[in-house]
Amino acid sequence: MKIITSSQNKVIKHAKSLQFKKYRDAAGEYLLEGIKLLQEAIKYDADISHIFYHDEVLGNPDIQDIIDTCIERKIPVYEMEEKLFLDISETKTSQGVIAIGKKRDYDMTSLIKQKCFNIVMLEEVQDPGNVGTIIRTADACGFDMAILSKGCADIYSGKTIRSTMGSLFHMPIIPDMDFEHMLGILESVGALTLAAAPHDGMPCYDIRYKDKNAIIVGNESKGLTGAVMDKASLKVNIPMIGRAESLNAGVAASILMYEIMRHRLAR
Amino acid sequence: MKIITSSQNKVIKHAKSLQFKKYRDAAGEYLLEGIKLLQEAIKYDADISHIFYHDEVLGNPDIQDIIDTCIERKIPVYEMEEKLFLDISETKTSQGVIAIGKKRDYDMTSLIKQKCFNIVMLEEVQDPGNVGTIIRTADACGFDMAILSKGCADIYSGKTIRSTMGSLFHMPIIPDMDFEHMLGILESVGALTLAAAPHDGMPCYDIRYKDKNAIIVGNESKGLTGAVMDKASLKVNIPMIGRAESLNAGVAASILMYEIMRHRLAR
Repeated sequence: MKIITSSQNKVIKHAKSLQFKKYRDAAGEYLLEGIKLLQEAIKYDADISHIFYHDEVLGNPDIQDIIDTCIERKIPVYEMEEKLFLDISETKTSQGVIAIGKKRDYDMTSLIKQKCFNIVMLEEVQDPGNVGTIIRTADACGFDMAILSKGCADIYSGKTIRSTMGSLFHMPIIPDMDFEHMLGILESVGALTLAAAPHDGMPCYDIRYKDKNAIIVGNESKGLTGAVMDKASLKVNIPMIGRAESLNAGVAASILMYEIMRHRLAR
Repeated sequence: MKIITSSQNKVIKHAKSLQFKKYRDAAGEYLLEGIKLLQEAIKYDADISHIFYHDEVLGNPDIQDIIDTCIERKIPVYEMEEKLFLDISETKTSQGVIAIGKKRDYDMTSLIKQKCFNIVMLEEVQDPGNVGTIIRTADACGFDMAILSKGCADIYSGKTIRSTMGSLFHMPIIPDMDFEHMLGILESVGALTLAAAPHDGMPCYDIRYKDKNAIIVGNESKGLTGAVMDKASLKVNIPMIGRAESLNAGVAASILMYEIMRHRLAR
């Protein structure tokens, strides 16, 4: 365990830089804040490279457990004063513990070779809360993977990570993918690719889902691009009988994923 | 049309005060910002008492239409410089038009006397985005009313209103209700009251819904209070087969409401 006393410390400066996407991309690392999130990260073997806490929280048994596990795993642990700590923190009411995690790489080819799978694909979904919420629902209804296009909210931003409530560590999440290329691969393995179209296509209740399904949801205001819409197997809508023109992107994705789960449970 | 040139103008100071709940409650008024929201407010006869725009946006035909309609309806219209305008604005990228709306009162007794209805009830749901999103989904799936307990995010805050995407004006939304009292009334008219319980009760797919249903969803971290849980007709859950411990409150409410709509459409 090391004690940091200066805001000019190299490790602190590095941690702070990870609040920005540019530095997260360059380092392949990100910040993980809060007790629950760190517990999930440890439980699911996320790669943690450093851990920070401030001296006011040492009495908290959950934080002590996290620190003990990190020491066992030979992860460098840093203690500091609260004032210094709050400089790295991105939350309004910090729980006093933050880690640096290393981004995980996945082998897409082997993932796609699974016998059955359900995937959610997000094209330019910009709100971090929406992206995180969709990953959380995908996890809840047993989806196997989330694939994000360029232009989506960064899955490694603090707000997205917190919205996933730990589901970030439960399933592969693959950012910056080319969707037209991806749709070709999914077609070649016999997956049903379903483009969410608020006012077009088939109602989600009438579709014969397959063993392999991919739900594709688009940007909050523009929806899916024409190219993706054209290349998908089917357009799917969620019936609306009131006066609302559309649903929130996170809600739409969640209802579609749950509809697939309902069919799977009914079989 | 009047021109305002000073930040000390009484009308400007009043509008600005409505950014805070305390003043919204005292005045029975709230701010409405943006083209789409104002179009919906006008279309659905929301009570607008003042309208403000800045001189840079006069070329915009949508804003011109809004202003013309307000002039026709004898609603006071105020023009000002952008700098002054941005003082009232609550958005990062303002569209240049804001109104003051008067809160609407509803006669709960007559609403409850309807032959068939579906209601969503929110107990201490604190995130304005969640509250707004749930109202938007309730509207989309033909629900008739939203009832909020004390301790919910204010439906008249800018963030909640924007998240409703106009659905605020499409259905009665009744805040600050006593839920135990409300459940008694609903029981007396034969409604099925369904308490959302993540790990308890019946799966939402197995319930025999009635002509009158009320879905009750609780606080993001604590869920529903014991009193409400005990007084409801049934506890209902959304099956989860993955590793997530729970769903986002907005997603959970949306899935439950859509499940009721699916049953209604199937009949």
